[in-house]
Amino acid sequence: MREFDFLARVFAANHLLPKRVLVPPGDDMAVVDLGNGDGILIAADSAIEGRHAPWGCDPSVLGRKAVLRNVSDVAAMANARPVAIVATAVLPRGTSEDRAWRLYEGLRETGAAWDAPLVGGDIARTSSEDPRAPLEVSVAIIAAPVRPGRGYALRSNARIGDGVYVTGTIGGAWNPDGTGRHLDFTPRIAVAHALDEVLADRLGAMIDVSDGLGRDLGHIAECSRVSIEIELGHVPTTAGVAPREAIAQGEDYELAFTARGHVPSQLAGVSIARIGTVVAGDIAVRVRDGSAWFDARTAGFEHGDGAGTGGGAR
Amino acid sequence: MREFDFLARVFAANHLLPKRVLVPPGDDMAVVDLGNGDGILIAADSAIEGRHAPWGCDPSVLGRKAVLRNVSDVAAMANARPVAIVATAVLPRGTSEDRAWRLYEGLRETGAAWDAPLVGGDIARTSSEDPRAPLEVSVAIIAAPVRPGRGYALRSNARIGDGVYVTGTIGGAWNPDGTGRHLDFTPRIAVAHALDEVLADRLGAMIDVSDGLGRDLGHIAECSRVSIEIELGHVPTTAGVAPREAIAQGEDYELAFTARGHVPSQLAGVSIARIGTVVAGDIAVRVRDGSAWFDARTAGFEHGDGAGTGGGAR
Repeated sequence: MREFDFLARVFAANHLLPKRVLVPPGDDMAVVDLGNGDGILIAADSAIEGRHAPWGCDPSVLGRKAVLRNVSDVAAMANARPVAIVATAVLPRGTSEDRAWRLYEGLRETGAAWDAPLVGGDIARTSSEDPRAPLEVSVAIIAAPVRPGRGYALRSNARIGDGVYVTGTIGGAWNPDGTGRHLDFTPRIAVAHALDEVLADRLGAMIDVSDGLGRDLGHIAECSRVSIEIELGHVPTTAGVAPREAIAQGEDYELAFTARGHVPSQLAGVSIARIGTVVAGDIAVRVRDGSAWFDARTAGFEHGDGAGTGGGAR
Repeated sequence: MREFDFLARVFAANHLLPKRVLVPPGDDMAVVDLGNGDGILIAADSAIEGRHAPWGCDPSVLGRKAVLRNVSDVAAMANARPVAIVATAVLPRGTSEDRAWRLYEGLRETGAAWDAPLVGGDIARTSSEDPRAPLEVSVAIIAAPVRPGRGYALRSNARIGDGVYVTGTIGGAWNPDGTGRHLDFTPRIAVAHALDEVLADRLGAMIDVSDGLGRDLGHIAECSRVSIEIELGHVPTTAGVAPREAIAQGEDYELAFTARGHVPSQLAGVSIARIGTVVAGDIAVRVRDGSAWFDARTAGFEHGDGAGTGGGAR
């Protein structure tokens, strides 16, 4: 089973959802109408020892990453601010109180730092006898619009002619030993809010770069039913990482977005680079590397069977 | 480590939470102010194969129970209706697409049945090689007030002189083989809403019975800083279950509550029995069995190390 095939089946059931679901599954967050005109945004993501963080890491690192992943989803909606988080933890048998407490502290402190207070949840223990059973934590986040009524930077909002942009630098987020900046990154809330304010209606689609830039742009192409052309040489890569590797690796937690008109080259202290254009044509993300083109969507990181924790081309 | 010791440490950090957290961790749901006067309610609970449902069960049963546990938390706030759920699943290596799909269907269909549409989440796989690694699912639920501004039936709302009540029958929810009505119960949303409407300001504290009636009444006693006296012979027990066992077993998902004045003996098709009284005195749940008294709080089901899945006296 591949995650994206499974998700396609899930999204096919979106038409069964009640009308109060304003943004259904398939974006960085869902939006649900509370009946008072405003939407509430919600998303959930887990972090598993040995998969999303190195085996044997300090549990606070795992808790922190679980929260940061969720805050990054809030950033990717542009017009959203965190409100609160809840978390459930699954502890292997015999987990010490100290380790459990450090997991909790990682959740609580990171939530507090991002104005997403930890307000509830649950702790359970596995019945598995496996000494290598991983520490696991699931976090759900709720968010509210910064400016109610303004809408969100949905993946379906790209228009033909939009420029394609990315914040920061791409690639090298995950070291071979599992460490790296994917464990302690700065979710791009501030630049997302600045873009939403500065660009207003000129802001198109937005996504956070977790599966790999190529694949994440593919989500925008699919949801917006457009083609995206990327100039490989314009992708801002982390020093020492080859561009073709960089766009396939993932776990960057930068923002990729489309926009019309002038876009500043820096906002909220974060650099912004134009890397391509939204064009007419079949749904695709085509990358120009000199005189050659390749399809970027199949080069990204997929969370399916057999996928490693480090991403990389498959 | 015992769960309740750990949670006491967690609740001790409640004073660090921002003011918008109207009801902090420690109740059935947290309530967070969205800035427009209304609160949003949120909670999360997981379900683990071999722990909350029998090993090897149909994954839809696990998904259903995870959702029902969360809807039961909504019921226990009285003035709350489900809005949406998100779910994260952790699949053992090699889980078939069919099993993953059935888990999803259990989540989606149960959510739809309780007006809590599944709007998002994530699927991950464990790195564990353990062939007995369990299927796990975590669900977070958001809810909204039925009547904004009216408040909720918090655990801290019991007053000296209140009657103590329970819905339905207690005990026997969990068969020795792990099956039983704990896998497919009716969360008490309808009777909770009816009680909130009929009793209005006469409704006191409310909790759903998951840890065991004795222990759950203990949570009310602790949060309200009162003593509760129960008449064992008045507890409505499931046929064939001895009363002292019934109040210790747990997983009933009935509602226990306190109220002033007349309370109907049936509402929304569910029987309601008066089983005791809130009295002055040290925080305690004292149960009268003929001429003897015993402390009910230590007889309940605790989700700590070494606790079985079936509850029962420890």
